Amino acid sequence: MTDASSRPVARNPRGFADRRGRDLTAERRIVARVSEVYERWGFEPLETPAFEFADALGKFLPDADRPNEGVFALQDDPEDDGADSWMALRYDHTAPLARFAAQSWETLPKPFRRYAYGPVWRNEKPGPGRFREFVQCDADTVGSDRPEADAEIIAMAVEGLKAAGLGEGQAVVRVSSRKLFDALFEAQGVADPRQRLTALRAIDKFDRLGIEGVRALLGEGRLDESGDYTKGAQLSGAAITAVEAFLTSAAAQDLSRATVLDAIASSGALGAAGEVALAELSAIDRALTAMGAGQAQVQFDPAIVRGLEYYTGAVFEAELLLSTTDEKGRPVRFGSIGGGGRYDDLVARFTGERTPATGFSFGVSRLASALRAAGRGAQDETRGPAVVIVFSQDDMGHYLDAVAELRRAGVAAEVYLGHAGMKAQMKYADRRGSPVAVILGGDEIAAGQVTLKDLDAGRARAAAITDNEAWKAERPGQRIVPREQMVAAVRDIIEGSSINFDTAS
Amino acid sequence: MTDASSRPVARNPRGFADRRGRDLTAERRIVARVSEVYERWGFEPLETPAFEFADALGKFLPDADRPNEGVFALQDDPEDDGADSWMALRYDHTAPLARFAAQSWETLPKPFRRYAYGPVWRNEKPGPGRFREFVQCDADTVGSDRPEADAEIIAMAVEGLKAAGLGEGQAVVRVSSRKLFDALFEAQGVADPRQRLTALRAIDKFDRLGIEGVRALLGEGRLDESGDYTKGAQLSGAAITAVEAFLTSAAAQDLSRATVLDAIASSGALGAAGEVALAELSAIDRALTAMGAGQAQVQFDPAIVRGLEYYTGAVFEAELLLSTTDEKGRPVRFGSIGGGGRYDDLVARFTGERTPATGFSFGVSRLASALRAAGRGAQDETRGPAVVIVFSQDDMGHYLDAVAELRRAGVAAEVYLGHAGMKAQMKYADRRGSPVAVILGGDEIAAGQVTLKDLDAGRARAAAITDNEAWKAERPGQRIVPREQMVAAVRDIIEGSSINFDTAS
Repeated sequence: MTDASSRPVARNPRGFADRRGRDLTAERRIVARVSEVYERWGFEPLETPAFEFADALGKFLPDADRPNEGVFALQDDPEDDGADSWMALRYDHTAPLARFAAQSWETLPKPFRRYAYGPVWRNEKPGPGRFREFVQCDADTVGSDRPEADAEIIAMAVEGLKAAGLGEGQAVVRVSSRKLFDALFEAQGVADPRQRLTALRAIDKFDRLGIEGVRALLGEGRLDESGDYTKGAQLSGAAITAVEAFLTSAAAQDLSRATVLDAIASSGALGAAGEVALAELSAIDRALTAMGAGQAQVQFDPAIVRGLEYYTGAVFEAELLLSTTDEKGRPVRFGSIGGGGRYDDLVARFTGERTPATGFSFGVSRLASALRAAGRGAQDETRGPAVVIVFSQDDMGHYLDAVAELRRAGVAAEVYLGHAGMKAQMKYADRRGSPVAVILGGDEIAAGQVTLKDLDAGRARAAAITDNEAWKAERPGQRIVPREQMVAAVRDIIEGSSINFDTAS
Repeated sequence: MTDASSRPVARNPRGFADRRGRDLTAERRIVARVSEVYERWGFEPLETPAFEFADALGKFLPDADRPNEGVFALQDDPEDDGADSWMALRYDHTAPLARFAAQSWETLPKPFRRYAYGPVWRNEKPGPGRFREFVQCDADTVGSDRPEADAEIIAMAVEGLKAAGLGEGQAVVRVSSRKLFDALFEAQGVADPRQRLTALRAIDKFDRLGIEGVRALLGEGRLDESGDYTKGAQLSGAAITAVEAFLTSAAAQDLSRATVLDAIASSGALGAAGEVALAELSAIDRALTAMGAGQAQVQFDPAIVRGLEYYTGAVFEAELLLSTTDEKGRPVRFGSIGGGGRYDDLVARFTGERTPATGFSFGVSRLASALRAAGRGAQDETRGPAVVIVFSQDDMGHYLDAVAELRRAGVAAEVYLGHAGMKAQMKYADRRGSPVAVILGGDEIAAGQVTLKDLDAGRARAAAITDNEAWKAERPGQRIVPREQMVAAVRDIIEGSSINFDTAS
């Protein structure tokens, strides 16, 4: 224990973070408020385990070049090389839901609506702001092919994000359908599934690369600024033109949902199958309106793809519109906070029977940091406990009585339990974000009194008073009250408190 | 996808469970209520990641014969064989706290109080009721060597368990100190740390094996009923006699804490070091009393050891006293629900500097199932949403309006989104634990009315009426109200509801 060379270094594995203080409180508040909305919409909570069998999780992450294709996997039983040997940590909440639904289908109420939150793990290359463990919050409906099920998920996501703290105009959900792309590819004779997937991944970059970049990736390929060459989808010139017409058909901002559908229809690129897809989106539009999701909150956008391979119908992406500046004053755009879509084939991986499903997922930490950066963290103000100062072991009984009385009255409170002097204890109370220090010195105890120090007032006055003598004379924020009025006086001080604190270091 | 032989089987890895419905709700309620108590006592929330470096976790589990000594470990970077290569999932919340405290010590308020809850993972041999992933809830104070810090943890645990639903007399926390055993071993000349550990593990079985079994395990060894031989601690006859005198000095039930300390002191087995340990327990006793922890809630018991190696002072174990019967009517004793103690050397593993710490941990699922089995699950009653029945796609707008109105009024509600007929939809509502079905048929819509079916009343009447014709005539629990009174009438039905349901299958 005492030999430094044999001691482990206290450190986190890269991409894994500790969370505490205001950040953690904010995340928990988001989850609590969103859960409340989801339950009101009839979704029940479900928690699946961290581990799934690797074959049950499937390989749907786009990280094919990472160890174990982007998941954390381990061999449960090294002597068994069968399907029951390899387990992996879930990388999302959708794959475990598909496994659960397939396993429990007979006994579930159908359609089955559930929500879930909790950490997911991705074996990605860690980097600044890129975590390998993060909390996702999902809601899904399994067993309904109705467009109203997609609309419900979208409208509920809008209400959930609002409950989490996003104001009017701070987020938009953009919606499209994979069936539009299927129709587009079919009309253009693009039949090879891998070619389709490469083309979809190219289209997915429209937002970032613009139409020029997408055109290159749909064709031969593209050399990016760093010198990396990405091979293209090798589509014909005619097909590329059709995709372009489709993508740009409704590229203007803030078009109504019906206008976008009309524009896509008139792009002429979709053929007969496109009409079915457009009719579905039209039904989603009607249901969204009936559910109160306004035109500014949910928009149709032909360019929405979503990266995951398993989507089969409607796809949606929630984008944060709030913007802020970083430490250097540069504007920061938050972009996508989550998304989802319809995945009618995922349960069939297990059962062989097509089971329609649709869902939405968002990143909790990401939303929390966006809200904080956008100055909507004020609602996440939290306070430390009242701190009872300790002078003498002999008077410990008095301190413990006081703290017990405060806790019984519902006031967060603690006795200082270190060995430092008065000054260090006041500094401790400051660090804890404490609103008030409770002082029971020998004199106070003898006189049946208690001295209370309003730490916010003290901090405010301390900033104003520069003269040390004036400080001592005034003792800002300090008041002496009869011991039996302690709880009422502490409450009074706490209710007057309005200064933020942050315990995060 | 359609070839059955290539499809994965939908199943959980052994020892990993899905949780939903009332069970999950009950666990979440326990965590929420205990968190509320812990925060009122001045403990702040902290979440550490699932993964730690293996060397940071240390090897403190008693499962030396399991793969990776009882933890789930994986090599992060197969090309690196250094300390940064192997990561492991946390097996408790204490080891990660020690790592965090060592890493952040300079910036923390000291003493540092934190609580944590979340899953932990143990690579144990799974069996009935033995899970490899389960939720623990911990509270710890790092940086205080005061006996009041131990007392605070114990008294707070008592209040937390009470808030979770345990009634008067349903739980007791038993407290001892490793320092008593240190004194005992010192007085008897038992110096070898491994011999001491073997002796402690023997004493830990006093509860189960009685004094005869412990005597054998302190001496040569013991052959159990299954024929397995456990090698003993090889203590001398005099030492065994001293341990016996110590263990049986205060074995009677319900002795006051002071009486137990007196009895231990008069057992004469402890020598000079014992007086220090007894003085500490005496200070814990006084603080417990000041904090309102009664003699029946917290007892001293010399035989409490706790299995983990790292404890250095006070040790505590929370025992459930409530008993119930299993399906076959046999009495079931729940036993230990959690425990903890003082571990002054765990942070020093990293820093080389002794940092006093003390904490308590309990198993959330275990407490939830004990409460349920003891019939205290009534408070965990949860209800499904109101279900709006679907007849015709043409009237979908009416259904969606109704459900939106209910949700806006704070009533959990949903539209049925499958394709089944009326009867199957009523069965669905039943499965969901729904209190009320909302019926908007063509006639109702035309008349500006809505039919509400009180499903609890219906279930109750259905049990009483055996005549099918009488049933049809009466239509139990059904009422027709003007459409604009829907919300008020639904509320009225829900508030009258009092029947439990359980969505768990």
